[in-house]
Amino acid sequence: MNPFSIPTRDDILDARRTLAGVAVETPLLRSDALDRLTGARVLLKCENLQRTGAFKFRGAYNCLSRLDRAAYPGGVVAYSTGNHGQAVATVARMLDLPATIVMPQDAPAVKIAKARAAGAQIVLYDRNRQSREEIAAEIAGRTPVAVVPPGDHRHIIAGQATVTMESIHQMGGLVPDVILVPCGGGGLSAGTCLAVEAMGVRPEVWAVEPEDFDDTRRSLASGMREVNAALSGSLCDALLAPIPAELPFSITQRRLAGALTASDVDVLRAIRFAYEELRLVTEPGGIIALAALLADPARPRGKTALIIISGGNVDPAVFKTALDLDLAPLGSAA
Amino acid sequence: MNPFSIPTRDDILDARRTLAGVAVETPLLRSDALDRLTGARVLLKCENLQRTGAFKFRGAYNCLSRLDRAAYPGGVVAYSTGNHGQAVATVARMLDLPATIVMPQDAPAVKIAKARAAGAQIVLYDRNRQSREEIAAEIAGRTPVAVVPPGDHRHIIAGQATVTMESIHQMGGLVPDVILVPCGGGGLSAGTCLAVEAMGVRPEVWAVEPEDFDDTRRSLASGMREVNAALSGSLCDALLAPIPAELPFSITQRRLAGALTASDVDVLRAIRFAYEELRLVTEPGGIIALAALLADPARPRGKTALIIISGGNVDPAVFKTALDLDLAPLGSAA
Repeated sequence: MNPFSIPTRDDILDARRTLAGVAVETPLLRSDALDRLTGARVLLKCENLQRTGAFKFRGAYNCLSRLDRAAYPGGVVAYSTGNHGQAVATVARMLDLPATIVMPQDAPAVKIAKARAAGAQIVLYDRNRQSREEIAAEIAGRTPVAVVPPGDHRHIIAGQATVTMESIHQMGGLVPDVILVPCGGGGLSAGTCLAVEAMGVRPEVWAVEPEDFDDTRRSLASGMREVNAALSGSLCDALLAPIPAELPFSITQRRLAGALTASDVDVLRAIRFAYEELRLVTEPGGIIALAALLADPARPRGKTALIIISGGNVDPAVFKTALDLDLAPLGSAA
Repeated sequence: MNPFSIPTRDDILDARRTLAGVAVETPLLRSDALDRLTGARVLLKCENLQRTGAFKFRGAYNCLSRLDRAAYPGGVVAYSTGNHGQAVATVARMLDLPATIVMPQDAPAVKIAKARAAGAQIVLYDRNRQSREEIAAEIAGRTPVAVVPPGDHRHIIAGQATVTMESIHQMGGLVPDVILVPCGGGGLSAGTCLAVEAMGVRPEVWAVEPEDFDDTRRSLASGMREVNAALSGSLCDALLAPIPAELPFSITQRRLAGALTASDVDVLRAIRFAYEELRLVTEPGGIIALAALLADPARPRGKTALIIISGGNVDPAVFKTALDLDLAPLGSAA
């Protein structure tokens, strides 16, 4: 098994079987207010309701449950902006594997606390001065542990692909014309592209990135993996990978329809919308696909749009900022 | 059809069919943190994710879709602390019926605004000085409209009963030992009792009321419908009916295991727990069953507990109060 090869249809179907009864079959919700606002049929896949509050649980479980324990008696190490680390920590505890999580100091406190509560050893680093890959590799050099990357692994991407495969199954006969998916390193976007291919449907798949962290958009334009100018400075802490991950980009490069961006204000408005109209708690990076839709609601008019909500681990201070927004124009559409 | 007779098993099965594809089949979620905290298998029925953000949609749709339009050309009138009114307004628009909603002046602004946005005519009243029943009856005397009560109607209770029937279907082979259900006038509690009876299962069903608004608890004790001392003064605006409704109480009186209470602080802690661990937006009255569980988490140890979350329409100011709570003891259980 080559961990750097593109997942096949069978890999995704295997992941579906592995995750059955373990991952939550998260609901696919609709909103009368959203359908009226867009003139489209909008379906929301709620991975904020997944175990650990993010889709990352899927890839982590699919990957760790296949680990060669004899080769890695030291367990696993993950570097993560938060949700991947939390997923790896939780899955490691479920599977009785030791876990070390390398997290940036400025990750939301709630994410750091939860990874620690899940029993993982936490190593903090400075996002602006240190490289998480180097720290993880250094730990892996000292002890016989497997590095679990957030995207660059066949079983991780196959696990993330189950989000979209499951969504389309839940849609019954309906087929999405457009899918909007939050994009950081690109693992979820890559999984989405492969899932629709495996199911023989042909929606436009759009990645959505934070404004000024549009490495995927620029990489699609140039044909090369481009780096973001900054490493921090967006509310979307879950989407601040410095560059598209290699394996995901090799998948998305020829399959994405394109990439959109959303601003911090767009994202806060979407958090508020999800609070008021969907009764869901969502995090900035998790709701960015809905943010892009709300910023340009006429885009999918007359179509069927699948919006992936990827996570819901949000610091109360950020959530309160969203609650303080004056949303009269959106509210009146309810 | 006698609207004041106790719904039969067939009435509930009819309601299931009427609501299929119209009401959301709301998810039944689990939480690793909650199972660890309680030592029980806890299932959460998320009616905050129902259309209009509360279970009230079910009863309203089941009732209004059976209305004799020739007899009531003026449509419907409802008196409501908020969620029932919103449900009636929304359903009336779906069915192209005129609707008048009588709401207390101190209902959450978000609920009043949404009922108005749904196209209903709104009549506000003072909860401490006026009787909503009299206002509704007076409107019904002037124009040929049908009064849609929040609980005192066979089709309303049959609709609410589908919450629990659907939950038990979603549980596969699992059967609840205990059900905790939010209780105001008693329509949802009554529906819950009838649903388990119709399905031939025998869980203990407990109603949960706001502290100091424990009319159902005192009524069960005395055998007569008792009145609350106050008409306002709890965060749980959805549960402030002054007295158990007649038809629901005739059902719950012999079927409830009992009634529990939860304080405003218990409720705020539960809202915070649902935010952090479940990523759900819930309202005070909607989360009160979970509040009672969190206040006494060892109660269902070793058992299977079904907790009904009944609504999620909450003013941002209240939600922010919950976010400001220091929940270190609960957080550490995550």
